[in-house]
Amino acid sequence: MASTFGKLFSITTFGESHGGGVGVIVDGCPPRLPISIEEIQADLDRRKPGQSRITTPRGELDEAEILSGLFEGETLGTPIAIVVRNKDARPSAYEDFKDVYRPSHADFTYEAKYGIRNWQGGGRASARETIGRVAAGAIARKLLRELAGVEVLAYVTRVHEIEASIDPGSVTLEAVESNIARCPDAEAAQAMIDRIDEARKDGDSLGGVLECVCRNVPPGLGEPVFDKLEADLAGAVMSLPASKGFEIGSGFAGTKLTGFEHNDPFTVEDGRVRTKSNRSGGVQGGISNGEDIVFRVGFKPTATIRKAQDTVDSSGKARVLEAKGRHDPCVLPRAVPMVESMALLVLADHFLRQRAQVGGS
Amino acid sequence: MASTFGKLFSITTFGESHGGGVGVIVDGCPPRLPISIEEIQADLDRRKPGQSRITTPRGELDEAEILSGLFEGETLGTPIAIVVRNKDARPSAYEDFKDVYRPSHADFTYEAKYGIRNWQGGGRASARETIGRVAAGAIARKLLRELAGVEVLAYVTRVHEIEASIDPGSVTLEAVESNIARCPDAEAAQAMIDRIDEARKDGDSLGGVLECVCRNVPPGLGEPVFDKLEADLAGAVMSLPASKGFEIGSGFAGTKLTGFEHNDPFTVEDGRVRTKSNRSGGVQGGISNGEDIVFRVGFKPTATIRKAQDTVDSSGKARVLEAKGRHDPCVLPRAVPMVESMALLVLADHFLRQRAQVGGS
Amino acid sequence: MASTFGKLFSITTFGESHGGGVGVIVDGCPPRLPISIEEIQADLDRRKPGQSRITTPRGELDEAEILSGLFEGETLGTPIAIVVRNKDARPSAYEDFKDVYRPSHADFTYEAKYGIRNWQGGGRASARETIGRVAAGAIARKLLRELAGVEVLAYVTRVHEIEASIDPGSVTLEAVESNIARCPDAEAAQAMIDRIDEARKDGDSLGGVLECVCRNVPPGLGEPVFDKLEADLAGAVMSLPASKGFEIGSGFAGTKLTGFEHNDPFTVEDGRVRTKSNRSGGVQGGISNGEDIVFRVGFKPTATIRKAQDTVDSSGKARVLEAKGRHDPCVLPRAVPMVESMALLVLADHFLRQRAQVGGS
Amino acid sequence: MASTFGKLFSITTFGESHGGGVGVIVDGCPPRLPISIEEIQADLDRRKPGQSRITTPRGELDEAEILSGLFEGETLGTPIAIVVRNKDARPSAYEDFKDVYRPSHADFTYEAKYGIRNWQGGGRASARETIGRVAAGAIARKLLRELAGVEVLAYVTRVHEIEASIDPGSVTLEAVESNIARCPDAEAAQAMIDRIDEARKDGDSLGGVLECVCRNVPPGLGEPVFDKLEADLAGAVMSLPASKGFEIGSGFAGTKLTGFEHNDPFTVEDGRVRTKSNRSGGVQGGISNGEDIVFRVGFKPTATIRKAQDTVDSSGKARVLEAKGRHDPCVLPRAVPMVESMALLVLADHFLRQRAQVGGS
Repeated sequence: MASTFGKLFSITTFGESHGGGVGVIVDGCPPRLPISIEEIQADLDRRKPGQSRITTPRGELDEAEILSGLFEGETLGTPIAIVVRNKDARPSAYEDFKDVYRPSHADFTYEAKYGIRNWQGGGRASARETIGRVAAGAIARKLLRELAGVEVLAYVTRVHEIEASIDPGSVTLEAVESNIARCPDAEAAQAMIDRIDEARKDGDSLGGVLECVCRNVPPGLGEPVFDKLEADLAGAVMSLPASKGFEIGSGFAGTKLTGFEHNDPFTVEDGRVRTKSNRSGGVQGGISNGEDIVFRVGFKPTATIRKAQDTVDSSGKARVLEAKGRHDPCVLPRAVPMVESMALLVLADHFLRQRAQVGGS
Repeated sequence: MASTFGKLFSITTFGESHGGGVGVIVDGCPPRLPISIEEIQADLDRRKPGQSRITTPRGELDEAEILSGLFEGETLGTPIAIVVRNKDARPSAYEDFKDVYRPSHADFTYEAKYGIRNWQGGGRASARETIGRVAAGAIARKLLRELAGVEVLAYVTRVHEIEASIDPGSVTLEAVESNIARCPDAEAAQAMIDRIDEARKDGDSLGGVLECVCRNVPPGLGEPVFDKLEADLAGAVMSLPASKGFEIGSGFAGTKLTGFEHNDPFTVEDGRVRTKSNRSGGVQGGISNGEDIVFRVGFKPTATIRKAQDTVDSSGKARVLEAKGRHDPCVLPRAVPMVESMALLVLADHFLRQRAQVGGS
Repeated sequence: MASTFGKLFSITTFGESHGGGVGVIVDGCPPRLPISIEEIQADLDRRKPGQSRITTPRGELDEAEILSGLFEGETLGTPIAIVVRNKDARPSAYEDFKDVYRPSHADFTYEAKYGIRNWQGGGRASARETIGRVAAGAIARKLLRELAGVEVLAYVTRVHEIEASIDPGSVTLEAVESNIARCPDAEAAQAMIDRIDEARKDGDSLGGVLECVCRNVPPGLGEPVFDKLEADLAGAVMSLPASKGFEIGSGFAGTKLTGFEHNDPFTVEDGRVRTKSNRSGGVQGGISNGEDIVFRVGFKPTATIRKAQDTVDSSGKARVLEAKGRHDPCVLPRAVPMVESMALLVLADHFLRQRAQVGGS
Repeated sequence: MASTFGKLFSITTFGESHGGGVGVIVDGCPPRLPISIEEIQADLDRRKPGQSRITTPRGELDEAEILSGLFEGETLGTPIAIVVRNKDARPSAYEDFKDVYRPSHADFTYEAKYGIRNWQGGGRASARETIGRVAAGAIARKLLRELAGVEVLAYVTRVHEIEASIDPGSVTLEAVESNIARCPDAEAAQAMIDRIDEARKDGDSLGGVLECVCRNVPPGLGEPVFDKLEADLAGAVMSLPASKGFEIGSGFAGTKLTGFEHNDPFTVEDGRVRTKSNRSGGVQGGISNGEDIVFRVGFKPTATIRKAQDTVDSSGKARVLEAKGRHDPCVLPRAVPMVESMALLVLADHFLRQRAQVGGS
């Protein structure tokens, strides 16, 4: 069940980059939630290739079809199956190096694990696999918005060494979507775009950092000890292709503070217990405390580059790889909806779990 | 099942800081593994309180008893239950502030979630809960060593701003255990100990970073797409108390490299496919590639400090907290066996899962 | 995850009777298993409607499409998605009684549970849902045959009061498929067919009993204490529509014997431990013992009948229902591949689980 | 996780017949449920050996200790660990035939599966393992009673060929507990007791049938398609030692009716949708309909008998077994609390699951 995620709001994804299609089954979505194909497509469109000059030119519209689980515009409480056909697959582009292990790709490890691999476009290891996650995330988004007013928003905070300045408390979707870098700091965004353009022309690639903020999360979500909210969030985003690090709240920087500097003092505001600072990142003891949940994810530079690289093939022979195929010079802008989806799936799951566990007497 | 971890090598922990005891059931350990109480106790002793002057003085021997699952020194393949009694519980130390929300502790969130909490020593949110993990980790350690020669070793690389210099490829258990900071860089270790001593006297606390290296992990462990090895490792260690961040291989620093700089070129050594560098951290596409798995975990400064802090109580009244109770001024040294255990549990689980999935024909 | 079955060889089904389609994702099938769409279709054809005059006339070809998980005719170890489109849906046939609770159907309970239901042809409660199970079962069948020589065969032993005489040790697929009743006792089969014809003309329906035999199951499958083989088989077949009872080996009749009469004496044959009798039904202590696994399933008479019945509608008003729609006068013949599939899925799952757990040292 | 049962109200049991002890962790019980050790002990006392002359004379008091999860008499929402020590273990009684495969016991299959077994008193295959289930069942019983008024009651309906006449709608706990056979039909009970006495003197054993009724179950529990209520109940009770068959409602007898005879007509009573008959057994389409849930379980005659039996030992040599050790001549009276517990665990789990899934908008 390695392609299943979530215990109550549960998704199972399928599909390879160049097979018949990719998709997802969402099992456990409560009934009578109004949801339309357009709402799902909106998130898929933020993920799809070819959406701007700094993303891969692969020409996929990624049009989703819902096969089950809805009736007259509402969820039935039964599994929702969503399929996206692969249309612009070009296996021939991969034919020349089908027996070559591309550096820092999953070619060698898939072969070591399975003894077989679909070498066309990365197979299951392709980020194309995340389509199912994003489609499911759109349903989780609707559920959380309707039932609890939760809002989840991610954005690019760093590309290579270009750091943006963004306030997670006030950033808006409009600001994020106002440029193709998905960085709400306009000046930094332009620098990022230029830097990505440069890398693309150079046949190279770039990494960076995303931040994600989750607002209006009710206190009480998260299940100690193994399903703490930050544990599930970390596991969720570290399952995304190219992610290399996760931190919540004060993160690694916070480890340089003393306890007195780091602790978040409690106070009462409008009759509600709040913290004066939010170094906890909205989670304490694995459970949401009602403050904004803020976490960051580091993504490595895309492994596919055009520059020549030394490697070996499956027979152990040294080879020089000059990649063709289509790819993103920087995954960050398209990773925004992926990270949001993973956060939404985690929160939806914990939202349902908390409903089941409310007090006994 | 929030206290259950692992799909095949599966553990379920129980226990509060000041209840009758803590412990674990290990379900899914293969039969006929020789294991003794001494091997389990050895890891528990590295975790136990009062082991040095820089850890909490709570006087627990943490002696484990095995109730089931073994017969004549070998595992039966049935659940292994291990219990550690709580002996030096002092609930009275917590009585004065039983209705006060300690800053950056789980008091408020447990109350928000459950509507009830055991205020004695942190209850289930206490790091005492990790006893069951460490006991189970000792069994996983034996299994992995016997069946695959895997070795897992963690050590402190930074306390506050004191950074050690350690080579993950050559560090030894002896070096780690040679000082009470569990930092194999002797000079840095001494500075860390001094700095922790200082914080303790000051009534304050410190955080830092651990690194963990897993050697001889066979290629092929990890299950895309949601149970990728780095995802499970991240989720595992982020479920430990006080952890705030996780990174693998090049981590956040690697996001500042270009793809050409970051990629690990493949080569063949002694007939085996290797990578020349290891920025991947031993995992590619979510699957081990046979190189050392190297990851880091950031721990915040201990929330319990003696300095006076502003907070509120459960009635919403402002209070000043001057903590008593016993605690660690820096969790890092005792977190070493906890992090090792989580890595061992993840690897043991994936080792068994991979045995089930080997090729079909 | 109520539509997911199995822990290692795991399936997730989707689809309503009259939605866009039905299908399944198989997750956890080992890589490099050769499997063709024809092998899957062969089992689907044994399940499909309209295959004989004693089954429902709904005109579905139930043609399966594989969307992922295969490459050049072999499994990749990644999820296998299979979709069957609904073609001959006729919602209008259900329009007249869309607010009426059909007796002994799931109309009322789905409404009570979900507050919404797809009233077209039974929605998710339709036996059409089992298409995904049968498609997945065909893959499990191939896996078990290739890796262990396991053979699973079900057949009708009773329809209404017509009881067949069949030896589970020697019955063949050819004998089962030699008549449309799927009863390998030719004389009883003819009587069953006549009796079903009669019921159909009468606007009534019939139930009966299936037996299933699993041969060449290696000793050691089954996981005490909750995943005992008979427990998983019982849970599996009792999740099929219309099943009302399960028994293994001597079953209910065996409860009338004394221990001395009932026990299966051990003996050694050709160097292998065997039992002289098989009242255990091939399972002892929840684990296969190498003898034929033999179990039986009771199916109630189809709830849909043409005869007028008293009932109520969703407003609580008394109504008389004279059903239209298309249905089977007796589900037994089409239940044969369904029961086989559930047994195959259970065995495949346990076969993989046992591979993971083999001895530790 | 073969010793874990339930998805939200989840239990993990441990322990062998002659190890240090047996017990259970209950994970997922909602917080603030008042529960006392006495309530748990009450159900354990109905299960314990030596309670009457027709049960095994093994002298165990089965006194339970709660190690965690409770605070001031209420559940914390954290795992509840319960331990019962083994006291009257007599391994020597098993020494003589420790390498002999007892007919229709799990000796051979455990050896085939694990390559090792605890031959003392059946090890994990002993019914002693059910102590953890019964202790957990007592908590589920309290939860369901407090939150929904659900009542679960089992009783013996047949021993060997002595059939009792009992109305599931009106039978009371007092009537069940009024005699040591746990059969509320006093006349049949006496005949059963006499027949069991006879079998015991004869060195033989008997089987029979239990019935279980679950009252006041709210409509809507059960999760199609694989976690239908009858599927989970069947899997649950078929995981009990010695169970050979399960049927719900009309069961196997109902398969001899026509659809017209079998269907349960709907009606409205006191504004509530009811069925006039209850051949469905309280479950339709896998979901409770609010009527009494009624199911039956067949138990084979105890495998342990004193009469001499032919068998083989682990070296394949023919042996004659004349069992010593202590055992029940008929498991039915002690199986009553076991079956109740499994039903309670299934219902508690589904009760929580349904709370999570209530309507979306």
